[in-house]
Parts: sequence; structure tokens; C-alpha cells
Amino acid sequence: MSLAMQQKIEIAADKPYPVYLGSSLEGLGEYLRHQFDDIEHILIVSHQVVADLYAQRLMKGLQDYRINLLIVPAGEEEKSLDRLSRLTAEALGHGTDRKSLVIALGGGVIGDLAGFFASIFMRGIRLIQVPTTLLAQVDSSIGGKVAVNHSAGKNILGAFYPPQAVWTDFSTLESLPWEEVENGLAESIKHALIADGDLFQFFENEQKPIKHRDCLIWSEMVTRSSLVKIRIVSQDEREQGIRALLNLGHSFGHAIETEMDYRGITHGQGVSVGIVAAAHLAFAKGLMTSAEVDRVIALLNSYGLLTKIKGLDSQNLLHKMQADKKNQGGRKILILPQGIGQALVTKECSDSEILAAWKQVLF
Amino acid sequence: MSLAMQQKIEIAADKPYPVYLGSSLEGLGEYLRHQFDDIEHILIVSHQVVADLYAQRLMKGLQDYRINLLIVPAGEEEKSLDRLSRLTAEALGHGTDRKSLVIALGGGVIGDLAGFFASIFMRGIRLIQVPTTLLAQVDSSIGGKVAVNHSAGKNILGAFYPPQAVWTDFSTLESLPWEEVENGLAESIKHALIADGDLFQFFENEQKPIKHRDCLIWSEMVTRSSLVKIRIVSQDEREQGIRALLNLGHSFGHAIETEMDYRGITHGQGVSVGIVAAAHLAFAKGLMTSAEVDRVIALLNSYGLLTKIKGLDSQNLLHKMQADKKNQGGRKILILPQGIGQALVTKECSDSEILAAWKQVLF
Ligand SMILES: NC(=O)c1ccc[n+]([C@@H]2O[C@H](COP(=O)([O-])OP(=O)(O)OC[C@H]3O[C@@H](n4cnc5c(N)ncnc54)[C@H](O)[C@@H]3O)[C@@H](O)[C@H]2O)c1
Ligand SMILES: NC(=O)c1ccc[n+]([C@@H]2O[C@H](COP(=O)([O-])OP(=O)(O)OC[C@H]3O[C@@H](n4cnc5c(N)ncnc54)[C@H](O)[C@@H]3O)[C@@H](O)[C@H]2O)c1
Repeated sequence: MSLAMQQKIEIAADKPYPVYLGSSLEGLGEYLRHQFDDIEHILIVSHQVVADLYAQRLMKGLQDYRINLLIVPAGEEEKSLDRLSRLTAEALGHGTDRKSLVIALGGGVIGDLAGFFASIFMRGIRLIQVPTTLLAQVDSSIGGKVAVNHSAGKNILGAFYPPQAVWTDFSTLESLPWEEVENGLAESIKHALIADGDLFQFFENEQKPIKHRDCLIWSEMVTRSSLVKIRIVSQDEREQGIRALLNLGHSFGHAIETEMDYRGITHGQGVSVGIVAAAHLAFAKGLMTSAEVDRVIALLNSYGLLTKIKGLDSQNLLHKMQADKKNQGGRKILILPQGIGQALVTKECSDSEILAAWKQVLF
Repeated sequence: MSLAMQQKIEIAADKPYPVYLGSSLEGLGEYLRHQFDDIEHILIVSHQVVADLYAQRLMKGLQDYRINLLIVPAGEEEKSLDRLSRLTAEALGHGTDRKSLVIALGGGVIGDLAGFFASIFMRGIRLIQVPTTLLAQVDSSIGGKVAVNHSAGKNILGAFYPPQAVWTDFSTLESLPWEEVENGLAESIKHALIADGDLFQFFENEQKPIKHRDCLIWSEMVTRSSLVKIRIVSQDEREQGIRALLNLGHSFGHAIETEMDYRGITHGQGVSVGIVAAAHLAFAKGLMTSAEVDRVIALLNSYGLLTKIKGLDSQNLLHKMQADKKNQGGRKILILPQGIGQALVTKECSDSEILAAWKQVLF
């Protein structure tokens, strides 16, 4: 199967929108001209490093439009109300109006921030997601979730805001630092674990070409992993049910990240340890064999992802899980794998069971 | 016709919702228990003065729920990202989660602020609007628009966020200062002018009982004026067309308010002068007779609303209109009355025509 060509996949949602996998940055302009006849002004929101690498290629196709490039400093801490406020001032300074279009060119931080901005600026203006990290391509650009953080909680203020389209150019991943690749791999492996056993095997079999960033294999990896997310959010746009499965590993991962104050641990590493904790818990609940747990650990390890973490206290971690915004009425909602390629949502884990799982990933 | 009884009117929208006109604060609890079986926690957002007057009556019906009352200082300047940020911290401190419900108990400031908060907190939690000013009852609580201001523009960040219901208790208007009544009257008269010639006559005929706050006449006034707004937003939730008519007088009014830095002029007075300017422009365009313009001026005057304003420069005001967020691609979009009881949207007014209209309301 040739994956070098562009594929269009429609996401079923209140307002359906297409994901273009394997498209080219240069081609976006033609797409916009073809789809929308009332766009005059475009705001591109990006990081400096991403703009330096890719803005020119993108703008090649956008010569018909009045363009402003808004640069946001890199870093999770920029996903804030403060930054939103500045973007608002800058956008107004550039004469942004209801007919303007926002292009989010970057990773998940840019996608979430610029996406949330687009969702509330003048009560919503049009948005195109152009994801440039592995995590953004397989995960954050798909599904319409946008948000900013608050000192009291991550992604606490946000919206479900479907973009006009997601425009994914695999070639932008070539410049991605390996650490960032890991963040995306953790989510991709999670996708495989919860919904696609074949993809899990693909990750097991193709370690070498994946690590060497073989172009065709990466196209396939991004495509197949994106398809998992697309399938899930198409069934449950608003996270009333099955979409919650995507949080596998995240309740544990967030607890680690907050306990460590987001220092010395990447999101991907946190999620990776979280996946392992969930797998141990699944084993304890009879949802997985120990051989399956071992496969999960081995796969994560083989990509350099953490499967245990040092120097943390299980009680503190348990306590941190209490603040998770997925919890309802005080009950901890957890996602557990069910073998390889399936998962389920459960409220039925006692604190002592959760503690036991924590202990398996601490040393 | 007895208007003392509760009327339920359904607003047609993507997600339809009911407006309960003439309901009682005490009755909301029963309604909630009846409608929703998964609410445990309620956040009431209000001003101190409103809470002192009405929170107890409201809470009488809410004894089954865990309630937190969040007090926001009064004033338009509190419709801000800063206040939103504080509400977020307070809400999290009180254990607010996705199943919590927000009740906005107050005027348009509370409705817009608490409504926007509810729309983005954890990507949206449930909301009930309980409007307590005339403006909020006939206008701002209906139609799902919520927003905060930014130093660079009013209502610049916001959403369309239909509440679960609008719960309107006419009796809360008894305590409203007259200046606040005027703000609501300006919008009510605007409703009559754009869409209900009979209501316009009602305002002409019932001046005395309206000024004396006759309870039955007020019920009728609020009901009929609300119905205009309900009818319009039901046809055009997202302001793609007819809903724009509700902005009659507002482009002019906003220009006055910003030119005066929101000091020494109420919103209602600004809108009132704006309505008159629009009427003059409509006359110049052959849309109104001079007798109709005179009726408009006489009616506004009779309720103590401004119809001319002193000490402002028409060029500056024209310039201020440029920043209106309803403008598109640099063209000024204006709403003009078409006789009494109809209105239209037009881009066809030249700057010199607009200037001439401004001059008619300046001295
Ligand atoms: N909306 C969702 O559904 C969703 C899902 C998962 C994660 N997220 C969010 O995504 C964010 C993380 O996203 P991320 O992992 O993409 O991080 P990121 O956006 O911070 O990007 C990581 C770094 O890589 C740089 N970069 C981006 N593209 C590059 C490229 N092509 N070449 C070189 N450098 C590049 C960025 O400038 C940045 O410094 C978090 O805020 C998380 O909450 C959102
Ligand atoms: N969302 C919309 O569609 C829409 C439409 C029009 C206006 N608005 C917004 O509404 C706001 C203005 O609303 P407003 O005119 O109601 O002003 P407001 O909310 O500031 O209320 C005016 C004052 O009256 C007090 N008050 C409220 N109810 C009272 C009562 N029953 N008795 C005594 N005092 C009471 C308030 O505490 C406040 O001090 C503006 O911010 C405007 O942008 C929104």
C-alpha cells in the first residue's frame, strides 16, 4: 500500500471535518482557495523554530491572502490565559475579523492554544490544524479538543472546537528532536494497545526502521495511529463514552507529572509509566495475562520509554489522582487494557488496588 | 390575559432549550430535580447585592444539592479573563467537576461571565441563566451568547453556549435601580422597533404604568419583549442573518461609549442615542418617514432616554465605528429601521451619510 499519497478521512462529528494525511504544506493554499471563497486574512500561529523551518513552505501557497504570523514562545506554560490575552491583542492589531482564518502550525501546544483562541475569538473563527509533531499528528490535532492550562489544573479551560480541516504533512517530522518523537510514540503505542492489536505488532516488528525514521514506515505508523484516534472520536466526539479510552495511562501519568512539578519528566515518559501501571492493574483485575503485561513493558522499553520511575511515593501519587478532571463524584475513573488491542473504562478499582499498581512501577 | 403564570417557550437551536417566563426563584430546585438526575453540586455565581436580595429564595428549593456561592464584584470591568481565572481557581477549590451545574444569578454581566465560564470550564459544564435585570430578562439571557471583554474590545472572547434553561422571575425586577431599568428599556424599545410594531405602541400607550412599575404591565412588557428576542434567535442562533437586527443602535452606541471611555454614559443611553442616529440614517435612505423618526425620538424621550449627546466629535465617532467586530472586510455593517416594527441590515451607507446621521444626534 502506498502511503506517500494524500488520503482524506472524514471525521464524523456534529460538524464533520476532514483529516488530510500525507498532504504537503505547500498545498494548503490551493485547498483553501478551492474550499472557501470568503477568506482574505489568515493568522498563522506558531513557534519560532517551527516557523523558521516551515512557514515559508506553507506561505508559498498562501500568496493570495493577507497573512500575519504570530509567534508564541515555546513551552507548555504558554498554554495560558495570559498568552491568550496577548494573542487577542495582537490579532485585533492585525485587523482580524470574523472572516479571518487561524492556522495552528506546530505541536500540541500550538494546536491547543491557537485552537482555543480561534474557538473563542469573536465567539469562534475558522481554524486549520497543521500538526508538526508526532504527538500532534497522531493525537492532539484530531478530535477537536482545545484548551489552555490554569495554575489549578491542566487543560482546565477549553472547548470542543472542530477545525475546518487537519492538514498533516509527514515530512515536518524529520526535524523533530528524538525526545519529542518519544512523546508521540507513547501515545501511538497507547492507541495500538487500546484499539489495534495489529498496530501493536507493527510497533514490535518495525523497531529498526521506526528508530531510523524510515520515511515509508513512518508514514504508515502515523497513518495507522491517526486512524485509531479518528475512529474513536468519530464514535464519541464529546467524550461521553468510548473516547475516554484514549486516557489510558494518563491518570497515572498526570499524577507523576504533577508530583514532579513537570520537571525532569516528559509527558511521554509519564504516560509510558502510566500505561505500565494500568497494565499491572489490568493483570490484577484478570483483564490481562502476565505475558501480555510483559509485551507492553518490553515494547515501551525498546523505544527508550520509561516503565518504572524512581524516588516517588505511592501514597502521594494516589492522592494526586484525586484531582483528575475525569473523576466524577469522587470516584476514580480508570482506563485499563483488556489484553492487547482493547480497553475498558472502570470505576471499580479500590485505592489499595491502585496503590499496588503504583508500587509495581516505583523503585 | 393572565401573565402571572409561568410560560414555557422553547428556543429552537442546535440544542434547543426552554425559557421559563414568570417562574419563581423558589421553584428552580424542583425543576432541576425533575429534569436532571445526576446533579450533586451547584455553583451559584452572583453579585453581593443580588445574592443578598435573592440567594435565599433560590436556595430554598436547592436543599438537596451541595451549593457554593461565588461572589463577583459588580461592574462591567469584571467581565474579564482575570475574573475568569479566579472563578476557575475558586470552582476547583470547591470540587467542581463535569457534572456540576452553574447558576448565573444576576444581570448581563453575571450572565455573560458565568455563562462563558460554564462554557469553557472542563470544556463546558451545565448552565442555568437566572436573569435579574430587565436587560438580562428581555435580552442578554436569551440566545446563548456569552463573553468576556478584553482591553482591546468588548465581548471579544466568547462563545455561543445554550444554557439548560433560562429561569425568569419577574419579581426580582422590583429592586432594580431606575438607571438599570433604563438600560433594559432601551433594548426593549429596540426590540419593538425592529420586529413588533404593536409592542412599540404598547410602550407609547403604557408609559404611566411602566414608569410606576405596575406589576402586571411589567410582566406583559418583559414577556412581549423577550418573545421578540426568542423569535429572532430561534431563526438564527449563530448570527448569520436576521439576528444581526438586534444590533440596531449598537454600532453607534458602542462608538459613543468607547469615545467616552465608558464614563458618564450608560449602555442604555448610548443605545438610545444610537437608535436615533440609525433612525435619521434610515430617513435619509428613504426607509422611514420623518413622522416615524419623530415617534422614535418622542418615545425614547418619554422614558428619560437620551436622544442627543453633547461635546463629541462626529469624525472621531465615525472612526470608532471602524473597530466594530460586526464589520467585515472593512465595510461598515449597519442596521436600520424600516418604518416601525421592521429593520434591515445594510452595507450600503457611505461614510458621509453616516457622518450626517451622527451630526443629527450631536450638539
Ligand atoms: N487536544 C488534544 O486532544 C491533545 C491530546 C494530547 C496532547 N495535547 C496537548 O499537546 C501538548 C503537547 O504537544 P507536543 O508534544 O506536540 O509538544 P509541543 O507543542 O510543545 O512541541 C514540542 C516542541 O517541538 C517543537 N517542534 C514542533 N514541531 C517541530 C518540528 N516539526 N521540528 C522541530 N521542532 C518542532 C516545538 O516548538 C516545541 O518546542 C500538551 O499541551 C498536551 O496537553 C492535546
Ligand atoms: N449575551 C448577550 O446577548 C448580551 C446582550 C446584551 C447585553 N449583554 C451584556 O450585559 C451586560 C449588561 O447587563 P446589565 O445591564 O444587566 O448590567 P449588570 O449585570 O452590570 O447589572 C447592573 C447592576 O444591577 C445590579 N442588579 C442586578 N440585578 C438586580 C436586582 N434584581 N436588584 C437590584 N440590583 C440588581 C447588579 O449587581 C449590577 O450592579 C453587558 O456586559 C453587556 O455586554 C449581553
